[in-house]
Amino acid sequence: MSTVEIGLTAIGVFAFALSGALMAVRKEMDVVGMFVLAAVTAVGGGLTRDLLLGLRPAALQNPWWWLIVAVATLIVFFFSRVVDRLRRAVLLCDAVGLGLFCATSTTIALQVGLGQLEAILVGTVGGVAGGVLRDVLAGEIPSVLRRDTQLYVVPAVLGCALLAVASTTGLDGGPLIVLAGAAIAVVRILALWRGWKAPAPRPGGRTVR
Amino acid sequence: MSTVEIGLTAIGVFAFALSGALMAVRKEMDVVGMFVLAAVTAVGGGLTRDLLLGLRPAALQNPWWWLIVAVATLIVFFFSRVVDRLRRAVLLCDAVGLGLFCATSTTIALQVGLGQLEAILVGTVGGVAGGVLRDVLAGEIPSVLRRDTQLYVVPAVLGCALLAVASTTGLDGGPLIVLAGAAIAVVRILALWRGWKAPAPRPGGRTVR
Amino acid sequence: MSTVEIGLTAIGVFAFALSGALMAVRKEMDVVGMFVLAAVTAVGGGLTRDLLLGLRPAALQNPWWWLIVAVATLIVFFFSRVVDRLRRAVLLCDAVGLGLFCATSTTIALQVGLGQLEAILVGTVGGVAGGVLRDVLAGEIPSVLRRDTQLYVVPAVLGCALLAVASTTGLDGGPLIVLAGAAIAVVRILALWRGWKAPAPRPGGRTVR
Repeated sequence: MSTVEIGLTAIGVFAFALSGALMAVRKEMDVVGMFVLAAVTAVGGGLTRDLLLGLRPAALQNPWWWLIVAVATLIVFFFSRVVDRLRRAVLLCDAVGLGLFCATSTTIALQVGLGQLEAILVGTVGGVAGGVLRDVLAGEIPSVLRRDTQLYVVPAVLGCALLAVASTTGLDGGPLIVLAGAAIAVVRILALWRGWKAPAPRPGGRTVR
Repeated sequence: MSTVEIGLTAIGVFAFALSGALMAVRKEMDVVGMFVLAAVTAVGGGLTRDLLLGLRPAALQNPWWWLIVAVATLIVFFFSRVVDRLRRAVLLCDAVGLGLFCATSTTIALQVGLGQLEAILVGTVGGVAGGVLRDVLAGEIPSVLRRDTQLYVVPAVLGCALLAVASTTGLDGGPLIVLAGAAIAVVRILALWRGWKAPAPRPGGRTVR
Repeated sequence: MSTVEIGLTAIGVFAFALSGALMAVRKEMDVVGMFVLAAVTAVGGGLTRDLLLGLRPAALQNPWWWLIVAVATLIVFFFSRVVDRLRRAVLLCDAVGLGLFCATSTTIALQVGLGQLEAILVGTVGGVAGGVLRDVLAGEIPSVLRRDTQLYVVPAVLGCALLAVASTTGLDGGPLIVLAGAAIAVVRILALWRGWKAPAPRPGGRTVR
């Protein structure tokens, strides 16, 4: 990985860990719960990706992320109100993490020999599954599935598709990852800023059960 | 796979996807949530089976199911009330899917070299885990575990056991799968029709915590 | 495995299965739900460990635990109030199971070639994940993450770390497992007895969301 990728990954892990630790505080967990939720959010996507691909989880081979997760946990432990007030900055970093994790996961899936459609699926899971696991452990319906959430999965899918197509051109992998990740981050941030949401069935459907 | 098996699998995937998308509507998710829940319900069982057996997930090798899941999602998106009124038909198709997924999973487990008892376990998981994941993501206790549900796991276990025993006779695999799957579907439909339920501990136990 | 280890494992599986079945009773599940929750609690940790390590799940190779889980389910089905009154004994056995599962999982992770830090992580997951899956399937926030729970993950981590360090000395594996497992059980029981809890962020943080 290039220095740029390492830096972006660290930002993403940190932002994901902050969101996990903040969720744990909301749910009245102790410091153990904060660390676990921070770790699950930060590495859950990559872990799920590696299990799907039959790879030994990267998170078990090079656990440098522990340190970032621990720092994020401590910051939220002592300054949760400050972090909460910086929510916009956290969301920006989260978008960077989403973009990079999606792009990295798509690339790994292609390297393992998956087809493009399958790689887009695995890439999206790699970016999104951490937050889904965080919400499930916190006893909530995953936020990315709810109708009150700004687009999250859609930019992920689009960016992974962009990368899967671009990778067939023989362009160099490293810059492509950064480019596709940036595209995801930008669309996600635009969605946050402009309030873009995915369509939902009409309210009448709500009575269905 | 024979044409019959392919047709039955498509029916099962479609029915499972409908149930996932309907659950998403009930939980006020957007179209992304509907697609994710439909997909998880339809392929979650096979995915869990493959992870348990250490196989590359079949859902990643031949993603024809995307199309069926997308169609089911769109149908529920636009006509959720109609689909809801056809609930009995959906439950019938769900029973067909349960039977086939259980029978296929048991066969795969036996082919991988598992013992009969283990194959019954994996076969049941292959049929049931998709619905369990659907309910967990929707923030509900899995319906197959609740005391108000008609028999679902029990016919699955019985059919998988039937298949595991029959496979020792050297009979041809294809017809056995259809036969065992049909047996599961019939018992499940009888349970729905007659209101058969598994025993539950006496109400006095409810105070336990 | 030595006779001592086999006996301790059986005690742990039994205690974990009891806690799963009791949770199912609380959640008004039927006997199917009781068995599933008992099984998930008893073997979920080892299963998660094996998936993380890329091993064929031990639970699928030698399903002797079915019998213990079935017995525990039946006992809770008929005598849930009695079992509930013996809660302290169940918690003691649970501590024994936690200790042994953590120690076994750490050892397996080291044997597979993981580094010490990674082995501590996998060891803790092997001891704790069963209870986490139980709580998720029951629709609850995992008890080990909540601020009202006596130390559970902390003794697990400490014991796994003790074992990971001790294993570098070349001491014999079997006694080390029993020793580290006993250390975990003792610290867990002390935490229960003395009411030790992990620190939690100040209440002011609670308003964060």
